[in-house]
Amino acid sequence: MSVTAAQGFTAAGIAAGIKESGQPDLALVVNNGPRRAAAGVFTSNRVKAAPVLWSEQVLKGGEVTAVVLNSGGANACTGPQGFQDTHATAEKAAEVLEGHSAGEIAVASTGLIGLPLPMDKLLPGIEQAAAALGEHGGEKAAIAIKTTDTVHKTSVATHGGWTVGGMAKGAGMLAPGLATMLVVLTTDADVEAPALDAALREATRTTFDRVDSDGCMSTNDTVLLLASGASGITPAQDEFAEAVRAVCADLARQLIGDAEGASKDIRIEVINAATEDDAVEVGRSIARNNLLKCAIHGEDPNWGRVLSAIGTTKAAFEPDRLNVAINDVWVCRNGGVGADRELVDMRYREVRITADLAEGGQSAVIWANDLTAEYVHENSAYSS
Amino acid sequence: MSVTAAQGFTAAGIAAGIKESGQPDLALVVNNGPRRAAAGVFTSNRVKAAPVLWSEQVLKGGEVTAVVLNSGGANACTGPQGFQDTHATAEKAAEVLEGHSAGEIAVASTGLIGLPLPMDKLLPGIEQAAAALGEHGGEKAAIAIKTTDTVHKTSVATHGGWTVGGMAKGAGMLAPGLATMLVVLTTDADVEAPALDAALREATRTTFDRVDSDGCMSTNDTVLLLASGASGITPAQDEFAEAVRAVCADLARQLIGDAEGASKDIRIEVINAATEDDAVEVGRSIARNNLLKCAIHGEDPNWGRVLSAIGTTKAAFEPDRLNVAINDVWVCRNGGVGADRELVDMRYREVRITADLAEGGQSAVIWANDLTAEYVHENSAYSS
Repeated sequence: MSVTAAQGFTAAGIAAGIKESGQPDLALVVNNGPRRAAAGVFTSNRVKAAPVLWSEQVLKGGEVTAVVLNSGGANACTGPQGFQDTHATAEKAAEVLEGHSAGEIAVASTGLIGLPLPMDKLLPGIEQAAAALGEHGGEKAAIAIKTTDTVHKTSVATHGGWTVGGMAKGAGMLAPGLATMLVVLTTDADVEAPALDAALREATRTTFDRVDSDGCMSTNDTVLLLASGASGITPAQDEFAEAVRAVCADLARQLIGDAEGASKDIRIEVINAATEDDAVEVGRSIARNNLLKCAIHGEDPNWGRVLSAIGTTKAAFEPDRLNVAINDVWVCRNGGVGADRELVDMRYREVRITADLAEGGQSAVIWANDLTAEYVHENSAYSS
Repeated sequence: MSVTAAQGFTAAGIAAGIKESGQPDLALVVNNGPRRAAAGVFTSNRVKAAPVLWSEQVLKGGEVTAVVLNSGGANACTGPQGFQDTHATAEKAAEVLEGHSAGEIAVASTGLIGLPLPMDKLLPGIEQAAAALGEHGGEKAAIAIKTTDTVHKTSVATHGGWTVGGMAKGAGMLAPGLATMLVVLTTDADVEAPALDAALREATRTTFDRVDSDGCMSTNDTVLLLASGASGITPAQDEFAEAVRAVCADLARQLIGDAEGASKDIRIEVINAATEDDAVEVGRSIARNNLLKCAIHGEDPNWGRVLSAIGTTKAAFEPDRLNVAINDVWVCRNGGVGADRELVDMRYREVRITADLAEGGQSAVIWANDLTAEYVHENSAYSS
């Protein structure tokens, strides 16, 4: 269902020949209205790909008619030509959709950094995608944005008469400030751009922004939310925000579950922190500790590596009051040896680490992956 | 030669039975004077091992008679008992060396976190080590502090009539704020504690503190510098500081060259930065980028990953003015494609990355390693 679960949207996914493999590589999502409100969140990396620079400008207007997404090339670090290519992409989409201007067309790209896009393939591909647009095209669009993803990712939440749906790609370079993550969310709720923006920012803050697969931040991350208003219903903001958050959380969990080379999904919950910022800082530090990520891969409940990661942060804590549980076994108590580590069962894919800072009442959850030989292999062999 | 290259020092390295393997695991370094001045630098991790907490106190007095070092156990996260064990270690050394107090004995430990030390083996080991002390014991001491090190590391610089020598261990958990790195430096120069401290801090700032093998900061890092004054010569401070820096740089280079599972040593030089802090921040960000570390392992000159790492920093730079060279080939110019990446020869162990921020006149060098399947294997199988 994906981006076409909500009324008022059509989508397509086709093979334009951008990927040498011949796999699908171009997606088009169109908002047929009546409303065309939109919000977007982009990478915080200061080296931004051309489509990010373009789409940031488009989103300032608060209206998006269509999104063109391509895999097979990130169009990042491609200089002025790269920006012209993105502009030409938007112009082409505006032309084939008729009656629209390039300034309403968002563009997102993913793939190799530092290579120009094959515009002789991409531009005809937009015509082909426009011809293939359909009310059931969401699935094909989700497939066309895959890179090293092994499966495509979609999610839908339906409430009383209105729907939020979405698609996501992203397997490596997952980290805060988002990740090589392209996400398009759609809704037929009748919501104006500022309310969309508020809901999207709050949702990404606690979902995509707390996914830290490999600590690497991408140049291309883009999360868009488009509202058609086709349901005619304007939900309460709280209810709408919760629906957006639920779809983002579901997609974020799918991203972690399909991270490059990973064999474990690690849920890190930091509890009893003095502030939420402290909880997030500690969670990220644990999430990025390569030694711990290796230990988890080896099913070794190595809590010493959790403590050494906590110790690198500026969060409020006393070393001799720290407690750590792995899969609910409190292997570290008061900064020292706790329950028998042999009690920890680490056979399953999901591993839960709980770090108790014993300072206050705030908490946060960060998702990460283990570090594996397969991750090394994929990322030493694949240029991206 | 190691720590006994300078006059006035004796050392020993023995197998006390702390390691189950029966390999050497206890080292003793004694300053026989006439001076017993000392300085120390310790991990900046806030979770500090008991021997670090102890030795920090000892060093406040500016005098150290002897250092007891053990491998086979870090004595970190071991609570009040761990601190008592360190205290007992110092007491035992003071007793067997006769006429000294525990307050003059520094202690350093390395190995597994979260396990108590076998004091029934360690304390008799100190007697055994004291009996084995000799003017040529430096080599054996260097061997006894190894953990996953494949070779022991020593360095000596001799100037007109005086010498600085040292030993180091450290293979994983190498990162700023030092690393699971134990280093003892000795000199027969006649230098007082404040001058030792100044020389050591400046030396570690640009050597051990710029080694970032795996981004993980240890609980046990300790670098000590002991001066016997036995040469009777007080060098100019500049000359002395340079000798200390040279020995630290040599040992730091050896640590990177023997990092766990590494197949490449990566020298990252950041040039034309606005400030030295900017240069270091950018260098560390590049050093810690797992995707880049995988690419280097695969001999892939993936400069896009260098740019995406730079983009995560707060350093002063404009994305479209960045230049990046890999092994002196400027593969990225003005934030876009530069020279043909096929020109980059990456067959050798040492890989040089140069990042030109085009902002100012400051620079810094950070050393790192690639990320390999062997690193994953060693650290998922070995609990430390």
